[in-house]
Amino acid sequence: ARRIATSAKSSLPMYHSTKLPLESPKSILIVNKMRTQPVILAIDAFLEHVHTTYPGVRVFHEDRVDIPHGAEVWKPGPHAEKIDLVVTLGGDGTILHASSLFSTGAVPPVLSFSMGTLGFLLPFHIDDFAKALESVFEGKATILNRMRLACTFYNKDLAKKGSDGDDWQVMNEIALHRGSSPHLNTIDIFVDGQHLTEAVSDGLIVSTPTGSTAYSLSAGGPIVHPSLSALVLTPICPRSLSFRPLVFPASSVITLRIGDRSRSPAGVSMDGRTSHVLKPGEYVNVQASPYPVPCINRSSIIEPGDEGEHHEGAGPGKDDDWVRDINNLLQYNATFRSKALLRHSRT
Amino acid sequence: ARRIATSAKSSLPMYHSTKLPLESPKSILIVNKMRTQPVILAIDAFLEHVHTTYPGVRVFHEDRVDIPHGAEVWKPGPHAEKIDLVVTLGGDGTILHASSLFSTGAVPPVLSFSMGTLGFLLPFHIDDFAKALESVFEGKATILNRMRLACTFYNKDLAKKGSDGDDWQVMNEIALHRGSSPHLNTIDIFVDGQHLTEAVSDGLIVSTPTGSTAYSLSAGGPIVHPSLSALVLTPICPRSLSFRPLVFPASSVITLRIGDRSRSPAGVSMDGRTSHVLKPGEYVNVQASPYPVPCINRSSIIEPGDEGEHHEGAGPGKDDDWVRDINNLLQYNATFRSKALLRHSRT
Amino acid sequence: ARRIATSAKSSLPMYHSTKLPLESPKSILIVNKMRTQPVILAIDAFLEHVHTTYPGVRVFHEDRVDIPHGAEVWKPGPHAEKIDLVVTLGGDGTILHASSLFSTGAVPPVLSFSMGTLGFLLPFHIDDFAKALESVFEGKATILNRMRLACTFYNKDLAKKGSDGDDWQVMNEIALHRGSSPHLNTIDIFVDGQHLTEAVSDGLIVSTPTGSTAYSLSAGGPIVHPSLSALVLTPICPRSLSFRPLVFPASSVITLRIGDRSRSPAGVSMDGRTSHVLKPGEYVNVQASPYPVPCINRSSIIEPGDEGEHHEGAGPGKDDDWVRDINNLLQYNATFRSKALLRHSRT
Amino acid sequence: ARRIATSAKSSLPMYHSTKLPLESPKSILIVNKMRTQPVILAIDAFLEHVHTTYPGVRVFHEDRVDIPHGAEVWKPGPHAEKIDLVVTLGGDGTILHASSLFSTGAVPPVLSFSMGTLGFLLPFHIDDFAKALESVFEGKATILNRMRLACTFYNKDLAKKGSDGDDWQVMNEIALHRGSSPHLNTIDIFVDGQHLTEAVSDGLIVSTPTGSTAYSLSAGGPIVHPSLSALVLTPICPRSLSFRPLVFPASSVITLRIGDRSRSPAGVSMDGRTSHVLKPGEYVNVQASPYPVPCINRSSIIEPGDEGEHHEGAGPGKDDDWVRDINNLLQYNATFRSKALLRHSRT
Ligand SMILES: NC(=O)C1=CN([C@@H]2O[C@H](COP(=O)(O)OP(=O)(O)OC[C@H]3O[C@@H](n4cnc5c(N)ncnc54)[C@H](O)[C@@H]3O)[C@@H](O)[C@H]2O)C=CC1
Ligand SMILES: NC(=O)C1=CN([C@@H]2O[C@H](COP(=O)(O)OP(=O)(O)OC[C@H]3O[C@@H](n4cnc5c(N)ncnc54)[C@H](O)[C@@H]3O)[C@@H](O)[C@H]2O)C=CC1
Ligand SMILES: NC(=O)C1=CN([C@@H]2O[C@H](COP(=O)(O)OP(=O)(O)OC[C@H]3O[C@@H](n4cnc5c(N)ncnc54)[C@H](O)[C@@H]3O)[C@@H](O)[C@H]2O)C=CC1
Ligand SMILES: NC(=O)C1=CN([C@@H]2O[C@H](COP(=O)(O)OP(=O)(O)OC[C@H]3O[C@@H](n4cnc5c(N)ncnc54)[C@H](O)[C@@H]3O)[C@@H](O)[C@H]2O)C=CC1
Repeated sequence: ARRIATSAKSSLPMYHSTKLPLESPKSILIVNKMRTQPVILAIDAFLEHVHTTYPGVRVFHEDRVDIPHGAEVWKPGPHAEKIDLVVTLGGDGTILHASSLFSTGAVPPVLSFSMGTLGFLLPFHIDDFAKALESVFEGKATILNRMRLACTFYNKDLAKKGSDGDDWQVMNEIALHRGSSPHLNTIDIFVDGQHLTEAVSDGLIVSTPTGSTAYSLSAGGPIVHPSLSALVLTPICPRSLSFRPLVFPASSVITLRIGDRSRSPAGVSMDGRTSHVLKPGEYVNVQASPYPVPCINRSSIIEPGDEGEHHEGAGPGKDDDWVRDINNLLQYNATFRSKALLRHSRT
Repeated sequence: ARRIATSAKSSLPMYHSTKLPLESPKSILIVNKMRTQPVILAIDAFLEHVHTTYPGVRVFHEDRVDIPHGAEVWKPGPHAEKIDLVVTLGGDGTILHASSLFSTGAVPPVLSFSMGTLGFLLPFHIDDFAKALESVFEGKATILNRMRLACTFYNKDLAKKGSDGDDWQVMNEIALHRGSSPHLNTIDIFVDGQHLTEAVSDGLIVSTPTGSTAYSLSAGGPIVHPSLSALVLTPICPRSLSFRPLVFPASSVITLRIGDRSRSPAGVSMDGRTSHVLKPGEYVNVQASPYPVPCINRSSIIEPGDEGEHHEGAGPGKDDDWVRDINNLLQYNATFRSKALLRHSRT
Repeated sequence: ARRIATSAKSSLPMYHSTKLPLESPKSILIVNKMRTQPVILAIDAFLEHVHTTYPGVRVFHEDRVDIPHGAEVWKPGPHAEKIDLVVTLGGDGTILHASSLFSTGAVPPVLSFSMGTLGFLLPFHIDDFAKALESVFEGKATILNRMRLACTFYNKDLAKKGSDGDDWQVMNEIALHRGSSPHLNTIDIFVDGQHLTEAVSDGLIVSTPTGSTAYSLSAGGPIVHPSLSALVLTPICPRSLSFRPLVFPASSVITLRIGDRSRSPAGVSMDGRTSHVLKPGEYVNVQASPYPVPCINRSSIIEPGDEGEHHEGAGPGKDDDWVRDINNLLQYNATFRSKALLRHSRT
Repeated sequence: ARRIATSAKSSLPMYHSTKLPLESPKSILIVNKMRTQPVILAIDAFLEHVHTTYPGVRVFHEDRVDIPHGAEVWKPGPHAEKIDLVVTLGGDGTILHASSLFSTGAVPPVLSFSMGTLGFLLPFHIDDFAKALESVFEGKATILNRMRLACTFYNKDLAKKGSDGDDWQVMNEIALHRGSSPHLNTIDIFVDGQHLTEAVSDGLIVSTPTGSTAYSLSAGGPIVHPSLSALVLTPICPRSLSFRPLVFPASSVITLRIGDRSRSPAGVSMDGRTSHVLKPGEYVNVQASPYPVPCINRSSIIEPGDEGEHHEGAGPGKDDDWVRDINNLLQYNATFRSKALLRHSRT
């Protein structure tokens, strides 16, 4: 990883890594989606390690038939056991799922392990769990607070939709889409109550900076650094030559209202999970949530210089995980090859 | 202008309009670029009005041969007369020029008048100057602090370029471009000292949110609301399929360094003014300036409901000028016509 | 409409308007989708006019309950009555529907009338039907042969899908889309049997030049002049930074095959009509159809200079309808307003 | 290289490879730009090989001080020696240069060798020159006729610019650009004499399909298969949200005229060489040239199955070089990595 000595600020610590204000965690929630053999083995090793190394720490798991032996049942909701640390094992979708478990209040710090597969939200490899846990228990971990969006749905008569009236919290995005309807839908967009435009399109995405590398990116949106607080509005196949992605401050309220004469309703997906269908006249309000997801950084366990040159693209510890990820995972700005890489016409 | 009643925040005052913390201004600087007949007449009327209505207020003008009668000479620099209010007459370029006059410190509040031509940075029509001034003097004006970027240039040997070593302040953007060189240039991009990527392209733009509707937009960048603090990096004709605009938090330092083997140097334009040429090994650091431009909002003089329905696209006073501008000026999301607008085949 | 005198070819007649090799039509098929009051009245007037002015000419209509009085029933298929001229009344969708009625062989010349609403495929206003018919019967009409695509569907075992084994003919595009499935699909793209790439996306569009201003445009595709014979491949929200629209010669065969491990099947829409669902391993071959749609040009009835200056955007008769359409309908390259169009801050 | 068995056409020979109608060449022109050590050695070996293996064949070289020993001087122009085969050694730019040597008439077949570096127009590696020559002399070579554009420049008074009045032939593109002027230029675009639109931008590109992977691609244009005959118009940083690349049939004449009130002139680059400057009122006509560049295909020397699996991305002989190139060189549709490619957090 190449660095340049910049003036002034460059010598400061990473601004978007806040120190985790963490006493030693007393309770850990393990989150996994699939329960493949590697996941089972990893969870077993993890439980064994916690019970041995940090006696007294309680380990919880969602209430499922396949709950691992040695973990206590945890149920979300107002009376849920307090969790001090969430540990996820799986892909990006596993963190999205963990986020969805804390939809009414603060999210505990999240320590995310990949099972070998790279992911945008996965700072740690499962093989490093002991070292990662240690840095958390020793109070050395730093976090990136990933902004979430709060979505509230309304009926035509302006009443909240749904029995509970609770907001939905999303970490990537809320997407409205015509789905399998053959026709385009018409959605009125308001910003802080002011009419912005009427979109005739396949749909619309309101994304967090975290989600800017997910669906919004595929739809043509910009890449927004996750330490920024902002809302990204990206159209999906708009019937207009002049629609562009928009970036709003985190203080904005974006309202998406299905047009009264829309030829299609709009299916709603939040972080990839399908939920509501919005009919003409119905709408959703989207705004920054007061409850971000505190994600423990990879640099928490890496010392500068730790990594050898053989680690493709991986930078020294103080570096920004995000720079590594857009290069390694998205293959950002892959330049055209003009080096003598291949002998292509030999016979 | 249509509005929707959104929950919660929508009833709050406009978050991005701060009240101008202004005692009655004692000194006004008039800025104009061209001195066309309408501008001459407008300045005369303005001077007359100020001297009559606000006696004791001093009116300044840049030191030029065509300085208007009744205005005192003003020279920028450390010993410049203190200015309490800047008044610009002209197009967007006139505000960019006013910004450049205050390149080493705080900028006084700026009240901008168009001479009839629409502009993105022009909230007021010249015919309304009396009313606009009144609202400023009565302390009713609100401002939008438009972020600027501070640019510092370095030689190959890391020494600051230029005798004075001062930063350059830009309101729209800094653009590096191959200009009339036939060959692409190679620029290494660093973020907070960490190498992000090597760009092979016609050039690169680092823009403010204000500048996101200027050159960056033409190069394919997103539209960023000016009340957000962020840096937008947009490539110009990159030789890569996978370059995308990036949005960084205002705390970032972006370094653009001409590659040692770059086939072209890069000409630098700041807010449209050509300045340096950067040769291989030379670089520029770009970061948020501590000195934004406090722009007086159009809503300062408009009461809700003031404007009649005959004002195309213009919204009620409390509305966001920006929404009006991207609709009216940029013709944002102009939908395909499918109404019976034209009789096109009649003979 | 402004013209410039170009050298050489510019004085030639419009290259993409071939003269209609038409003897006086003996049979006309009227096609309409909706049967609104204006359509009913227009069809009545049309029938009346034909029977009076061109006695002996038979007028047909699709076999529907709402068949107009005075029209004979027409059924598509191998034993269909021969049609010399198709007349459509409605929007662009009505021509797409007319095209679908001739899916196994040549399409008769198509004369398309708008009911007042503008459309991309609609050269004539219904009020001009007498004049338009006259130019057809006098052999003065010129046509644009709009290329179609032939689509053939195959099972995993390479057998043709569907009982009849017939090709589907499309005038705009074939679109594969994940529809309401939450997951992206994986589609292998082959060109002339050679593997081009694997697309992970919401879907893919293969479009004609005619269709380049329809769905493909919304997905980011280029605008292709309809007198060119070419296939346009445009991805829909691909999970890649480096996917770009591709334009192939009309001699190409494009194969889209759902990947064996695709997480979603793909719904197929042809010219907006939903038909098949393709499961992993199934595929579709797309190639230029031998049966284009001969569309009668607007210039058939307009003499140069006919149109007054008051007709916004409309050009003289010899001009290309397409230039008019992308300007008037798509508002192509609408420039930012910088003229004194609005008085926006008056009170 | 994976192949799929498509129906019908897929079993036909490659449609866009025509057989070279070539008697044994009697004269060869060697073209190189730089004269680096590897080029010198390669030319020596080539000359030696030709003189030994094909005695009687004359070998020419451009008239330069560094003309290789054993080659005769060749000067372009009406009295130039007839050339039966052009051999280029170097990068893509070398072929562009070879094309420029034949600017007034037919171009002989071109056999292009890379010196190890990959290029889009470079089918052969220099080490294979004996085998490639053999296939040409044995009449087994196939060619792809790469379309060129003929550009004619006119003064304000419609007279041809330049003493000779000759057309310029380009293989990639003609680009108009503001260059180092700070201001945007205004260019009126006409198609077959009809006004299409007024572009306010950094510039405009009219490209061949061959050039669609060069500058036009960087400016956002589509990728067009080189066996298609078409003109691609791509704007460079247009001040409009609604400008899109356009693809025209090869029969079109595109006129680019600098607007009378354009704030900048436009510098002209053809295939990367800077030539004219066009001032307000001056214009250029661009149309398909009657003289394409017949490029000898890589598949001329490769038998299907020849290449082992170890050749990254290289396909069997009958395959389309272009598919290989957009994958290998442009890294087209590089998918996001989600495989366990890297162990990134190990310590
Ligand atoms: N056309 C597209 O690009 C679509 C994208 N999605 C995205 O999928 C997400 C759901 O993810 P899964 O449950 O894992 O579904 P999934 O298993 O279908 O995976 C979607 C892909 O997106 C990646 N991903 C997720 N969040 C990301 C982020 N913030 N940055 C970069 N990559 C990210 C995942 O690693 C995975 O490769 C949604 O939130 C949405 O953003 C959903 C539908 C269509
Ligand atoms: N291809 C392009 O789009 C280019 C754009 N520019 C822009 O021109 C600016 C300089 O402006 P002038 O001195 O007036 O030069 P100019 O007189 O050449 O005008 C450039 C145009 O940009 C508009 N503009 C300026 N700032 C804007 C903003 N923040 N948002 C929306 N529109 C804006 C102006 O109203 C004017 O129409 C530069 O800062 C740069 O952003 C400069 C060169 C090329
Ligand atoms: N996101 C999008 O842009 C989508 C577009 N479509 C398009 O709709 C077409 C079907 O049209 P309808 O049956 O009328 O459905 P529709 O009534 O839903 O209309 C679609 C719109 O596309 C316009 N249109 C159709 N063909 C066109 C063409 N060749 N050039 C320019 N505009 C055109 C129509 O005038 C209409 O405004 C499909 O072939 C597909 O191209 C379908 C789904 C999504
Ligand atoms: N921003 C950009 O992308 C710019 C691109 N160019 C291109 O450079 C060309 C001149 O090439 P050189 O003399 O070699 O100059 P050069 O040495 O500056 O190389 C330009 C690059 O373009 C590549 N290239 C050339 N023709 C190509 C094609 N048809 N398809 C794919 N890649 C191609 C070359 O291999 C080289 O990597 C011009 O015709 C123009 O297309 C020129 C200026 C700016």
